[in-house]
Amino acid sequence: MKHPMKKQKKVAIVGVGLLGGSLALALGKQKDLSLVGWNHRSASRKRASRLLRMSKDMDGAIRNSDFVLLCTHSNEIVSLLPKIPDLASPDALIMDVSSVKNEIAQKAARFSWAPYHFVPCHPMAGREKSGPENADAKLYEGKVVFVTPLPKTPESVLKRAVEFWRRVGAKAVVLSPERHDEYVALTSHLPHLLAAALVDTYGKYKQKNPIIERAVGSGFRDTTRITGGNPAMWADILQMNSHKIGFFLSLYRKKLLELENKINKKNSKDWKNYFEKVRKTRNKL
Amino acid sequence: MKHPMKKQKKVAIVGVGLLGGSLALALGKQKDLSLVGWNHRSASRKRASRLLRMSKDMDGAIRNSDFVLLCTHSNEIVSLLPKIPDLASPDALIMDVSSVKNEIAQKAARFSWAPYHFVPCHPMAGREKSGPENADAKLYEGKVVFVTPLPKTPESVLKRAVEFWRRVGAKAVVLSPERHDEYVALTSHLPHLLAAALVDTYGKYKQKNPIIERAVGSGFRDTTRITGGNPAMWADILQMNSHKIGFFLSLYRKKLLELENKINKKNSKDWKNYFEKVRKTRNKL
Repeated sequence: MKHPMKKQKKVAIVGVGLLGGSLALALGKQKDLSLVGWNHRSASRKRASRLLRMSKDMDGAIRNSDFVLLCTHSNEIVSLLPKIPDLASPDALIMDVSSVKNEIAQKAARFSWAPYHFVPCHPMAGREKSGPENADAKLYEGKVVFVTPLPKTPESVLKRAVEFWRRVGAKAVVLSPERHDEYVALTSHLPHLLAAALVDTYGKYKQKNPIIERAVGSGFRDTTRITGGNPAMWADILQMNSHKIGFFLSLYRKKLLELENKINKKNSKDWKNYFEKVRKTRNKL
Repeated sequence: MKHPMKKQKKVAIVGVGLLGGSLALALGKQKDLSLVGWNHRSASRKRASRLLRMSKDMDGAIRNSDFVLLCTHSNEIVSLLPKIPDLASPDALIMDVSSVKNEIAQKAARFSWAPYHFVPCHPMAGREKSGPENADAKLYEGKVVFVTPLPKTPESVLKRAVEFWRRVGAKAVVLSPERHDEYVALTSHLPHLLAAALVDTYGKYKQKNPIIERAVGSGFRDTTRITGGNPAMWADILQMNSHKIGFFLSLYRKKLLELENKINKKNSKDWKNYFEKVRKTRNKL
């Protein structure tokens, strides 16, 4: 006697770029899931269709879905939410993957249904290369995914979100949206801005001193690699997390002023101790 | 009839760490050269002896050498110079590999013999891992080596220095010591300081917020990798190139103030254009 086929869960991936495409590859071989994607622009829909079945309209992708992954830019998430409950399965779980959480969580909390269906998430799995053509089945493996519930999210819903991320090999870390935004402001958004300012300073100097190009080594390349990221995505981040980023930028500028004063003092032992302390912190990362 | 053995040139490597050790590996198979190294401390002499024959005293290493490579810290170079001419071969070529050139070149120029024997050099081949155990025969391959002659260095001596670096696969770029120091202040020394200040800011914040550790991703790791470098070496660099580093640090702080003002304006189009401009510059590196 044949074992009756267990009904597959439908996963809708809205916005199949690097993160959405990598989800598609990581989930693609799980037999209890059926995937469907959607991209707004037909060109990117076509590129994504090498990774998973793509729907021609968003409603069709979301209809009867058990999981809806919103993988679009941060500033589009809240406007997408209201149309989902009418289309998706009655117990659908909606998650996003964008880099800023507090504004999204606060606005989403205004929908009475949101605590039962929407859990904001942020996988720490970005790369400087975007687009579905850079998707990688192992992108999430061993990575942290921040799961930042709304004030009224029930434990059972939070648990479903945490378990979902285990499917792609990620480790869920539950955190308030506000704390999350503060942490990434320092570990991701500030470094991006600092690297951008460094490249900008270099670019201006290079116009008059083209030979400086030969003095670019692996250190400069490492330090500025993140500035290869998607400009539109980073513009959203800078707007949506401006308060926390501004706070750390101001703190950091004060730190640079201290260093500038230290340079003028020319005390070598002082510098050695400073770099030793910093290396110790860095080696623990 | 046997072809008479061509006399080998002797190469002394004073200070066999990452750079000196990598030179030893890259030159080790060249049959017209015989190598001998020297390290001050017996422990590091022992570690280096896996790479090349090590002399027990510095004089023995330098005696009758045709090439003397000074691979010690920046602030030791000038004090090593005066003893070399009496020991080395009469047409010996001395080069150093340290990161700051102007102070060394200026002080060396006071020795009347220096233009004929000493050419300051700087290979752009640093790594954050130091010591002879990290030596790599391919470290110099395809890398730029800045060759920064003294005011009176004859063309023939400069040419010998340029040709030496070709032996290890590097591309020599001739530049004045002052220009060199200005270029690397922006592409190497400032980035190091910025990364150190970022790690420092992070370290202080983490003391009260240990969970931030989970928010450290590949971007933060890339940006701060250079802070793993040797603290004593970087202390020397900060002292010996303080003027140029201070200049760019001040310029950079002004750039950050501009960005802080831009954050408060919250104009998204503006940010997108900014990040696009920066990405364009970065992609040309």
